[in-house]
Amino acid sequence: MFGGHQIVRASIEELLDGLEVGATVPSERDLAVRFDVARETVRQALRELLVAGRIERQGRTTLVAGPKLVLPLALGSYTEAARSEGRSATRILVGWTRQTAEPELAAMLAIEPGDPVIQLERVLTTDGVRLGLETTRLPAYRYPGLLETFDYTQSLYAEIARRGIAFAEAVDSIETTLPDAREAALLTVDTRTPMFLLKRVSYDPGRVPIEHRRSLYRGDRMTFTAIQTP
Amino acid sequence: MFGGHQIVRASIEELLDGLEVGATVPSERDLAVRFDVARETVRQALRELLVAGRIERQGRTTLVAGPKLVLPLALGSYTEAARSEGRSATRILVGWTRQTAEPELAAMLAIEPGDPVIQLERVLTTDGVRLGLETTRLPAYRYPGLLETFDYTQSLYAEIARRGIAFAEAVDSIETTLPDAREAALLTVDTRTPMFLLKRVSYDPGRVPIEHRRSLYRGDRMTFTAIQTP
Repeated sequence: MFGGHQIVRASIEELLDGLEVGATVPSERDLAVRFDVARETVRQALRELLVAGRIERQGRTTLVAGPKLVLPLALGSYTEAARSEGRSATRILVGWTRQTAEPELAAMLAIEPGDPVIQLERVLTTDGVRLGLETTRLPAYRYPGLLETFDYTQSLYAEIARRGIAFAEAVDSIETTLPDAREAALLTVDTRTPMFLLKRVSYDPGRVPIEHRRSLYRGDRMTFTAIQTP
Repeated sequence: MFGGHQIVRASIEELLDGLEVGATVPSERDLAVRFDVARETVRQALRELLVAGRIERQGRTTLVAGPKLVLPLALGSYTEAARSEGRSATRILVGWTRQTAEPELAAMLAIEPGDPVIQLERVLTTDGVRLGLETTRLPAYRYPGLLETFDYTQSLYAEIARRGIAFAEAVDSIETTLPDAREAALLTVDTRTPMFLLKRVSYDPGRVPIEHRRSLYRGDRMTFTAIQTP
């Protein structure tokens, strides 16, 4: 049941351990010669290391990847979490629009179908790597002037807090998925890369919905952590 | 950026909504004729619906899948969580062995490298579907006689509780991954199916490690939920 590529994978991992982050990984051909195995075996091992986030592709070059971002599964901003790990966090705007709520979204945000919604879609980056795609939808009535005044390179959570709205609870669902072509292009991955799909509705202390968020995170670049107590 | 398969996917989803769980999905060829698109377009849409858990394959037949199992990300047993959703939960033994701890595991379990460890590997099933592969490693000194007396079709958490050991905290990491050939065979998926990889160390009230667990869950059959508070 164990393919030879798993032994080769362990050997390559050992080799990677001895290299710096950002160093060039020897070519498929060189690795095949070095470990005296078929190139297809090396290809399979490299494919697994890519999904595991040990290596990354830049054009035709393969590099040793940095560690995954470890993000606590918690209320709180992506920016804070990244910075607490000593990593940079920026955002690239994809879309910033006013829409109307379809029935399912309206129910989640406790508004009426057809009510105005502000939708913000951004790519999250850490240390220059495109890590996630976040689509936030806010009931427009709660955020007058937001569309005109918010600096969308900044933390939306911080802006919401500045408006005096407190986060009391968030209900998350976490799934795995593959990205579609558009998402893969925005996140510079191929469509075979497993992703986290996190959907969240956040509530204020009066149990009024604050936002609905759909976050797609690259599984090869991110680990969630959580602490469970009874 | 949007492929035609996404429109076809929406049409197929509508069609699935009208079918019972377990019903046969029309063939690729029939769907291509019905929606007047290329078979490759239908194939791509079906591939996405397979990953999303809307359909499943049984040999050469494609069926409407039941809903994903929703598992709270919490301390507590898989059995209880499944049953609280009105679903059955059973286990299939893969391995039940005594081993010695390598240094990394020893550190996590607060034992010495080389100390004896009991390893239990089981496939978790819900309503007859192989849903996850769970490998639990226990420091042997805490569980005298376990290897000889434990009925491995039952809940290990219940057995641990019966021995008077209480779960006070668990530290989880959650990643996505692709299964290797052995894991894919044990879980009856193909190696392109995104999976959850949950690693957990559980502690008793004295902060003594109870177990290390590595759980691989089928992403097409399971959703995690969690509630976050400040």
